[in-house]
Amino acid sequence: VAVLGAGAWGTVVSLMLARRGTPATLVCRTADQAAELGRTRRDERALREAELPDAVRVTWLGDPDALRGATLVAAAAPSRAVPELAGWLAGRHLPEGIGIVSLAKGLGPGGERRLSEVWAEHLPASPVCALSGPNHAEEVARGAPTAAVVAGDRALGERVRDALAGPRFRVYLNPDLVGVELCGAAKNVIALAAGMSDGLGLGDNAKASLITRGLAEMTRLGLAHGARVATYQGLAGMGDLVATCTSRHSRNRRAGEMIAAGVPAADVESRLGQVAEGLATARGLLAQADRVGVELPISEQVVAAAFGGTPVSACLEALMARAPAEEG
Amino acid sequence: VAVLGAGAWGTVVSLMLARRGTPATLVCRTADQAAELGRTRRDERALREAELPDAVRVTWLGDPDALRGATLVAAAAPSRAVPELAGWLAGRHLPEGIGIVSLAKGLGPGGERRLSEVWAEHLPASPVCALSGPNHAEEVARGAPTAAVVAGDRALGERVRDALAGPRFRVYLNPDLVGVELCGAAKNVIALAAGMSDGLGLGDNAKASLITRGLAEMTRLGLAHGARVATYQGLAGMGDLVATCTSRHSRNRRAGEMIAAGVPAADVESRLGQVAEGLATARGLLAQADRVGVELPISEQVVAAAFGGTPVSACLEALMARAPAEEG
Repeated sequence: VAVLGAGAWGTVVSLMLARRGTPATLVCRTADQAAELGRTRRDERALREAELPDAVRVTWLGDPDALRGATLVAAAAPSRAVPELAGWLAGRHLPEGIGIVSLAKGLGPGGERRLSEVWAEHLPASPVCALSGPNHAEEVARGAPTAAVVAGDRALGERVRDALAGPRFRVYLNPDLVGVELCGAAKNVIALAAGMSDGLGLGDNAKASLITRGLAEMTRLGLAHGARVATYQGLAGMGDLVATCTSRHSRNRRAGEMIAAGVPAADVESRLGQVAEGLATARGLLAQADRVGVELPISEQVVAAAFGGTPVSACLEALMARAPAEEG
Repeated sequence: VAVLGAGAWGTVVSLMLARRGTPATLVCRTADQAAELGRTRRDERALREAELPDAVRVTWLGDPDALRGATLVAAAAPSRAVPELAGWLAGRHLPEGIGIVSLAKGLGPGGERRLSEVWAEHLPASPVCALSGPNHAEEVARGAPTAAVVAGDRALGERVRDALAGPRFRVYLNPDLVGVELCGAAKNVIALAAGMSDGLGLGDNAKASLITRGLAEMTRLGLAHGARVATYQGLAGMGDLVATCTSRHSRNRRAGEMIAAGVPAADVESRLGQVAEGLATARGLLAQADRVGVELPISEQVVAAAFGGTPVSACLEALMARAPAEEG
């Protein structure tokens, strides 16, 4: 398996593959990154705990042998890098029918398409699936019990499950690729709102209400795109949403805290030292919602707070003042 | 309004009523408790922040004038006290049609009946409703924004809403009394499981999965009793579940941590200094589930860990090994 993208999750996935007997190549973006990771064998910034075993080969995108022997590509780069990465992959002489498993939780450029659609456009002969769930890399790396779902091409999904699953990492097949991908994108936006609420010290009652309405909002958008409600009630929906909105490991939640503290959205990722997908996704979701005529009040307020200059307190008050659609 | 039960939530409800202009009588269980609260004007154990205003009269159940002038009774005592309290109330000469708002989150004795059914049995002429949601008393007391639902008799629900609601405490009418009450009971049992998971250090991924399956389990039981799925997706269901499973304020979550640390279930409440409703509710839920032929795997494991002598680690592993019913 070639794992493209050596962030925290890509690193842990390559480590899990190797531990379960599948040799993996971790493909970094730059030669410098590959040289450092090859030397230290661990991600010093995001994931100090996890040391890469010998069965993980480290290289970079410029290596002509980067995909040597790969029968499956795991795409762990941030969503914004997917079009370029898909183009890069399409320019390689890939074995016929090599599968792509999408690990990023975001949308394609402008929010127009889901990530599997971006992959399919560049690699029409490749089966695609998406892996998602409440899977903070830090916890998976230390062997904390975790569950995930895989959706999309069924035969590929079974291969992914068999390569990754074990007693501490359960993987279940889910038939709803649209729902799994839209859940992964939308939950990061709700986590920004949850982080804003935390940043203002509004407490656990308010945050629980926000998460509840967040899932309702995510579900409305998903159903309008043909997703299944069961996905939203499952690991990729509610599970990932709850983990992302409540965990100290969540970057998007922390990004929301930063915005509440007055950090401009443009500076959040450099301060985090990591990508916060929700920032790019929020406007994309609104574009998706417009097309199907669904309202996303939380995502709207996240965009207003992050990019519209509206004070975070005013955004959260506007949400509290609104009656929940799901009651009565 | 007479508020029966001077625990943290009863105290805060009487305080909110007084702040919104409704004189309240806070009725303690014992004369000693009333004397102390009358002197200190605050609940020193559970809720130091909140001082009772003068508009809250403090008395106890033995006071023949305890219900003087009351047109509404808010029942904030623990579930286990409800049958006796309902009997006591039935022995008073209540004004015709005085309403009961049930604040406890549990079941009647043996789990046979919901609390509103216990009230109705003793006071058949009284309208009953239940107030629920993610409402940690500590946060409501400090004015943190909070939302709740009220279900049951509609006219009474509107009175309750009008007496309690304000910009920082939103109250919405919900038409599903069965669902609201069963949510309030069941979420405490899931919170015990979440606390056990925390106690073993299983992390946020595992807890998010547990909460997700917990809501699915609660929903199955509710639907079998005629509840509405929207209630489970709303504030009394998912909202309260998330707050209870993730907040440091939650007693039931802390009770689960204690059980994971080896504290016998019989000693948990004395160590907490407060009631953990989930302990009594867990077996009652299983009785309810048996009657309608629904499986409650999490509640079963909670009972096994708390009362069956099964190690907590074995109970949580049994849950992790089980495929989630909600996927695929």
